[in-house]
Amino acid sequence: MLSKAQIKHIQSLQQKKYRQKYGQFMAEGDKIVQELLQAGLVQEVYATADWLEEQHALVATLPAAKVHEVEPQLLKQLSALTTPNRAMALLPIPPAKATGDLSGTIALALETIQDPGNLGTIIRIADWFGIPQVICSPDCVDAYNPKTIQATMGSIARVQVVEHDIIPLLHQANVPAYAATLQGKNIVEFSPIKEGIILIGNESRGLSQPVIDLCKYRITIPRLGGAESLNAAVATGIICGRLLLN
Amino acid sequence: MLSKAQIKHIQSLQQKKYRQKYGQFMAEGDKIVQELLQAGLVQEVYATADWLEEQHALVATLPAAKVHEVEPQLLKQLSALTTPNRAMALLPIPPAKATGDLSGTIALALETIQDPGNLGTIIRIADWFGIPQVICSPDCVDAYNPKTIQATMGSIARVQVVEHDIIPLLHQANVPAYAATLQGKNIVEFSPIKEGIILIGNESRGLSQPVIDLCKYRITIPRLGGAESLNAAVATGIICGRLLLN
Repeated sequence: MLSKAQIKHIQSLQQKKYRQKYGQFMAEGDKIVQELLQAGLVQEVYATADWLEEQHALVATLPAAKVHEVEPQLLKQLSALTTPNRAMALLPIPPAKATGDLSGTIALALETIQDPGNLGTIIRIADWFGIPQVICSPDCVDAYNPKTIQATMGSIARVQVVEHDIIPLLHQANVPAYAATLQGKNIVEFSPIKEGIILIGNESRGLSQPVIDLCKYRITIPRLGGAESLNAAVATGIICGRLLLN
Repeated sequence: MLSKAQIKHIQSLQQKKYRQKYGQFMAEGDKIVQELLQAGLVQEVYATADWLEEQHALVATLPAAKVHEVEPQLLKQLSALTTPNRAMALLPIPPAKATGDLSGTIALALETIQDPGNLGTIIRIADWFGIPQVICSPDCVDAYNPKTIQATMGSIARVQVVEHDIIPLLHQANVPAYAATLQGKNIVEFSPIKEGIILIGNESRGLSQPVIDLCKYRITIPRLGGAESLNAAVATGIICGRLLLN
């Protein structure tokens, strides 16, 4: 049985200001909650009786007081998503980190990505390609938004998300920067890379000119048909698929 | 001023059965409606006074009786989306076509894609890469779902979407088929292709085994990190980015 205060607390985590105030975020969904439990990141679990039964071995890794059986109806009320799930977890927001020395590694840097689904999908792409770090400009959508977390499909447990201004990042970086633009060099002319920052811009405006100007390379995915642009996450995937595979 | 019957008709187009009954679908959003008007596909426009003013040259391509100025409040009521727009268009669903002779062309074939955003994003990828045709198994989400149309960003005007069973398609096809799977040949080992069907499967289960068995090639995007899978549209983009660019 949850108290009114507990219900109010969980619902408040749908808003960034309360996530920041409490240093906590929520993740929803059967598989995501499983992955986060496996990663040992979960503080509290709220789930239906049948889910807790199915996952009892995993759930047993938490103290009993942190495991809450809730009715599907109440879970729906707690959910930030339109399609509610059988399980929800609360997790601590990791402490802000510096981007660190990037030599020998790949990082993705995102300027003003606005759609939570795109950000989550990009974090999932980073995880697939073994990219340890996604750097977000402060005006990106919040990485701990429930829709972003949902779209990461658990990858938030393995990829470090860092908030950092892009211009100083590029000034400090000791690896080459690759800007995704519509007026760059054809991506097929690039050889696979071992280190670098791949920069992806806003969904409708792309990267800002000052950011493009600071990048050593400008990459373009050639357009063979009529679409004006590609989805930002799809463009990220295509670039990683060419620059990181060999 | 719209009649109650008009309002009811437009709202009914949010459901597949009414789209099929009336042979009509709705598209929402400033840029999408502009593109569809340019393509000469629009039957009716419903938009705010300021949008009609801004786009008067384009709007003038329609008979005045087909252009409806509506209050933002009413447009919101008509909208299928949570973020309503300033313009909406009604368009005819194109007549069902046969897939035709595929020699010398690329087609995408989708088995049981369930998410409307993914389907729309894949249609947009097809448009970017100049792929004329996206073939959907009958159990894919409807291509004329308002969320799919939104995600195509206007590409629905340029890409032919065909509903067809996948197994007979593969039996009839006169070009090689490439199945996206987790247990195939590394995508970097493929040379760019000039013709073929690229097959993408369901978001959680991938392609079914009978479909994989009928494909000449099995392609895998190598996983370098921890994610269990990639988003279906991202995987489509990565495969197109490797197989279609040279």
